[in-house]
Amino acid sequence: MILDASCDIVFTAHAEIPVILMLRPRSGLGQWVTREEYAFEPHVPVVEYTDPFGNLCQRVVIPPGEFQIHASCRAHTADAIDVEPQAPFVPVAQLPESTLQFLLPSRYCESDKMNSLASGIVGDAPIGYAQAEAIRCWIATNIKYQYGTSNASTSALETADARHGVCRDFAHLGIAMCRSLNIPARMVVGYLHGLNPMDLHAWFEAFVGGRWYTFDPTQPEARGNRISIAYGRDAADVALVSQFGALQLNSMKVTVAPAPAE
Amino acid sequence: MILDASCDIVFTAHAEIPVILMLRPRSGLGQWVTREEYAFEPHVPVVEYTDPFGNLCQRVVIPPGEFQIHASCRAHTADAIDVEPQAPFVPVAQLPESTLQFLLPSRYCESDKMNSLASGIVGDAPIGYAQAEAIRCWIATNIKYQYGTSNASTSALETADARHGVCRDFAHLGIAMCRSLNIPARMVVGYLHGLNPMDLHAWFEAFVGGRWYTFDPTQPEARGNRISIAYGRDAADVALVSQFGALQLNSMKVTVAPAPAE
Amino acid sequence: MILDASCDIVFTAHAEIPVILMLRPRSGLGQWVTREEYAFEPHVPVVEYTDPFGNLCQRVVIPPGEFQIHASCRAHTADAIDVEPQAPFVPVAQLPESTLQFLLPSRYCESDKMNSLASGIVGDAPIGYAQAEAIRCWIATNIKYQYGTSNASTSALETADARHGVCRDFAHLGIAMCRSLNIPARMVVGYLHGLNPMDLHAWFEAFVGGRWYTFDPTQPEARGNRISIAYGRDAADVALVSQFGALQLNSMKVTVAPAPAE
Amino acid sequence: MILDASCDIVFTAHAEIPVILMLRPRSGLGQWVTREEYAFEPHVPVVEYTDPFGNLCQRVVIPPGEFQIHASCRAHTADAIDVEPQAPFVPVAQLPESTLQFLLPSRYCESDKMNSLASGIVGDAPIGYAQAEAIRCWIATNIKYQYGTSNASTSALETADARHGVCRDFAHLGIAMCRSLNIPARMVVGYLHGLNPMDLHAWFEAFVGGRWYTFDPTQPEARGNRISIAYGRDAADVALVSQFGALQLNSMKVTVAPAPAE
Repeated sequence: MILDASCDIVFTAHAEIPVILMLRPRSGLGQWVTREEYAFEPHVPVVEYTDPFGNLCQRVVIPPGEFQIHASCRAHTADAIDVEPQAPFVPVAQLPESTLQFLLPSRYCESDKMNSLASGIVGDAPIGYAQAEAIRCWIATNIKYQYGTSNASTSALETADARHGVCRDFAHLGIAMCRSLNIPARMVVGYLHGLNPMDLHAWFEAFVGGRWYTFDPTQPEARGNRISIAYGRDAADVALVSQFGALQLNSMKVTVAPAPAE
Repeated sequence: MILDASCDIVFTAHAEIPVILMLRPRSGLGQWVTREEYAFEPHVPVVEYTDPFGNLCQRVVIPPGEFQIHASCRAHTADAIDVEPQAPFVPVAQLPESTLQFLLPSRYCESDKMNSLASGIVGDAPIGYAQAEAIRCWIATNIKYQYGTSNASTSALETADARHGVCRDFAHLGIAMCRSLNIPARMVVGYLHGLNPMDLHAWFEAFVGGRWYTFDPTQPEARGNRISIAYGRDAADVALVSQFGALQLNSMKVTVAPAPAE
Repeated sequence: MILDASCDIVFTAHAEIPVILMLRPRSGLGQWVTREEYAFEPHVPVVEYTDPFGNLCQRVVIPPGEFQIHASCRAHTADAIDVEPQAPFVPVAQLPESTLQFLLPSRYCESDKMNSLASGIVGDAPIGYAQAEAIRCWIATNIKYQYGTSNASTSALETADARHGVCRDFAHLGIAMCRSLNIPARMVVGYLHGLNPMDLHAWFEAFVGGRWYTFDPTQPEARGNRISIAYGRDAADVALVSQFGALQLNSMKVTVAPAPAE
Repeated sequence: MILDASCDIVFTAHAEIPVILMLRPRSGLGQWVTREEYAFEPHVPVVEYTDPFGNLCQRVVIPPGEFQIHASCRAHTADAIDVEPQAPFVPVAQLPESTLQFLLPSRYCESDKMNSLASGIVGDAPIGYAQAEAIRCWIATNIKYQYGTSNASTSALETADARHGVCRDFAHLGIAMCRSLNIPARMVVGYLHGLNPMDLHAWFEAFVGGRWYTFDPTQPEARGNRISIAYGRDAADVALVSQFGALQLNSMKVTVAPAPAE
C-alpha cells in the first residue's frame, strides 16, 4: 500500500534550545519514499547528518516562542510483514559485523539481566525465529498496554516487573530478552497504518535466518504497512526529538492514510 | 532564495538494465531540503543506500521498454557563495582526515601530472584560496566552453591540451590542478539557478582555510543559489546515472526556479 | 615514556564459546604503538574487524579446554595528561557530529536521571572543563574505592546510591553526570603505568574546549602514561572479552613497565 | 604458513615533508597478524587513522635529514589461494553495497575504455570467475614483465598498448578489464613469500560467487602465503608512501620468510 504519513509537533521554548530531530524516513530495503516534506515555522538554519545507525538527523536551535515542526512523507510499503517461523538462529560466530552491536545491553534493555526470564519463556522452542516469536507472544499476553504507567526512563527490567507499559516498553522488553539469548535485536520507530489511537509507534526487529524480521508485541496479529523512521539500540538512540534544555510540548498530531490514487 | 528544481529523464531499455541513480539531494551544512519527490514510471523496486561519499544512491533494475525518472526538490539556498581571498593553505599534516582522499589523483583528474601547469598558473599567489581562485580564473579565461568537444571519458589532462570542454571538464581541470598543489579538491554536481541553457551542472570545491569553498570556472562571476546533489572525487563517483548495460536516453529536462511565495 | 604493557588471560571452556575480544590498542592522536603481539594457545582462526567506535575487535570461537590469550604492546605515551581548567563548554549546536552519541544515556550511565545530582555538585563552576573536574573531584572524595561491592551489572545510578565501587563504576558515574550537563563523555579502558595493584583500568574522557580530555576519578592526581585500548559509551561497548556462553576465568595478569632502553 | 615479513625504507628529506604511510597490515578474514613492529628513526609524532578502504594509515612529517622506516610483522597465511572456477558472476543488482565502488573507473584503471579488449579476451567463457581467470591468463601470456618500462603514472590503457610493465601495471590491467565486464575488482599490495627478486608486490581481487578471489597475473601458478597490507581502487589509493613534497629514496629492503618454529 502507498501510504501518506505526517507528524506535526508544536513546542514552546523559553530560551534557545538545541535539539536533534529524527523525523525523516529513508528509503531502504523495505520501503521506498517517493515524496517528503519537512518544514519549520519559524524557519531556522538546519544541519542534517547521518548518525552511526544510518538515521538522517537534523540539528536545530529552537528559538524562544512557539515552534512548529511539520514532517510528512509518502512511501511504498509492504501490506504484510515477512513471517518465517523456520528461520534459524545465527551462531554469534557467523553473525554479520553490523549486527554485533545489537547483541549488547543498552540503556533501556538490560539484556545482561534477562536471560533467566527469557529462557523460561522460550522453553523448548527451536532456536531462532520461534524464540523471538515466543517472546513477542508472551509480551502481548502478559504485559498490559496502559498509558501513563511508564515514562521516558522506564527500562525493560522495570517493565518486566511492573507488567504494564506502552509500545516503547513492549519493544524494550522484547529486545532485551532476544539479546539475552544471543539474538541481535534493535528498536524501530515509525508509522503504522491503522494504529488506534493514531500516534508514532515503536516495535522491534530480530536478526535470525540471515536477515532482520519485524516483531510487534502490541499487535494481536502481524501487520504490514509500516514506515520506519529510525533504527537504534533502544529509545535512547531513536528519540524523534532529543532536546538539550526545557521545551514545552503543546501538541503532536500524527496521520497515516492510504495515498490518493494518482 | 528558496528554489524549486526538477530533473526528468526518459530512457528506453531493450533488456533489464541495472542502474545506480544519484538524484536525491541531502540537506547539509549549506542547504536545507524541505520538499522532495522521486518517482519512477513504471514503478520498480528500489533499494537506497549511502555511498562512501555520503551520497544517497538508488539501485534499480530498469525493465525493458520506456522508463521515466522524475526527481524534484525544494531547497533553501544561499544567494551568494562564500568568498574568502585570505583563506590560507592548510598544510597536509593539519588537514582533517576526511579531506585526505581528495588529495589523490583520480580517474579524470591526473593530478600527478599537473603540477607544472598549475605552478605556472598560480605563480606567486599566496598559498591557499588565492591559488584555487587563480586556477579558476585561468580556466575561465583559457578553456573554451563548447558542447560536443569532449565526452564522458575526457580527462583533465586532455582538457588542458585541447583547451575546450563543458562544465564537467572545467571542474576536472580545476580539481586536478588544486590537488597537484596539495589542496584537497572535490567535484560537485547539482542545480544552479539561472544557468543558461538550463541543465544539470558541475563545479568544484577546494579545501582551504579549514573548510570547503565553491569554485565554478564556467561562471563569469561567483553565483549562489546552488543545490548540491552529489560529491565525489570526480565524475566517476558522481554519475547521476551509472548504467551497467545499454540504455537509450530519450530526453532529459531540468528546471530550476524560485519557489512560489507560500 | 615508552611503556611495555601486557595482558595474559587464561580461560577454561566446556563447550565451543564464541567471544569478541578487544585487546589490541590502536595508534591515534595520543599514543603511538610501535610493537605489538597477540597470540592464542591453542591457535584458532581469528577474524578482526573495527567496531562502530573504531576499536579493533577479534572474533574467535574458544574451543573446549584451556585457552590462553596473550596480548602485549609497546607504546609511546605522554608523561602527563593535558589539563586545561579554562576549556569552555561547547554548546550542543556546535559539537562535532562524532561527539553527539556521547550525550545520550547508555546501559550503565543513566544520564537522564543524574541532572539533579550533577547540578548540585558543579554548583557555580564555570561551564566546561571545570564542571567535569568538579565531578571528578566529587567522585574521588565521596565514592569509596572498594573491590567486591559492585559487579558487571552495576550502573552509575546504583553507584551514586551505594557510594562505593571500582574504577569502572567511578567512570560510569563521571560519564553519566557529564552527559546530564550536556557534556559529551565516553569510557576508556586501558593500561595505566603505576597502578597499584596492577590491573586493566578504566577512566573517562569529556569533550570540552573542542577536544577530549582525560579524567580519572580513582587517582589522587592527574597521571599520564596511559595506553588506551578501547573507547565506547560505557562498559557494554568496551568489554575486553564479550562472551556468548559460559567461560571459566582461571587467571588474568597485567603488566605495565617502562620499555628497556634500546 | 606463518610468515615473518619486513620492509625497511630509508629516505633523505631536504625540508619537512608530510607523508602518509600505509605499512601496517591488519588482521581480517584471510590473515591473522600475531606480531608487528613499526618504528621510525628519528622518532617523530605519528597520527594513525583508518582510510575509507579500512587501511591503517600513519601521518608523519619527515624532518630534514635521513629518515628510516622499519615495519615488520608475523602473520598466519593460507598456503594456497582459493580457486573456484565455477564461481558465478554476481548481477550488479545483487552485489553487496561495499563492492559497488569497485565497479567504477579509477585513476589508473580506465575501465570505461576497456570493454572491447576484455570482451575479446573472455570470449565465450562462463561469466564470473572464469572471465577473471581468462583475463589473468591473457595478461600473464601477453604482457611482458619488465622493469623500467613503466612508471608511477602508467595506467591500464597504456599498459594494454605497450604490452609490458611490472606487477602494479599487471594488476591495473586486470582490474580495468574485470570492471569493464561489471565484475568488481580491487588492488591489493602486500608481501608474497617466494617472490624473486623479493620486493613489495601488487595483485588484484575480483568479486565473483559472493566473495573476493585473488588473482595474480605475474605468477605462473596460483600461490598462497600472501600478507595483504592495503586495499584500494588502484595504486592511487594504496601507495605505501604518499609524499607531499620531494623525498630522496635511498634504499628499500623487503624480506619474507617462514617464521622460526616456536
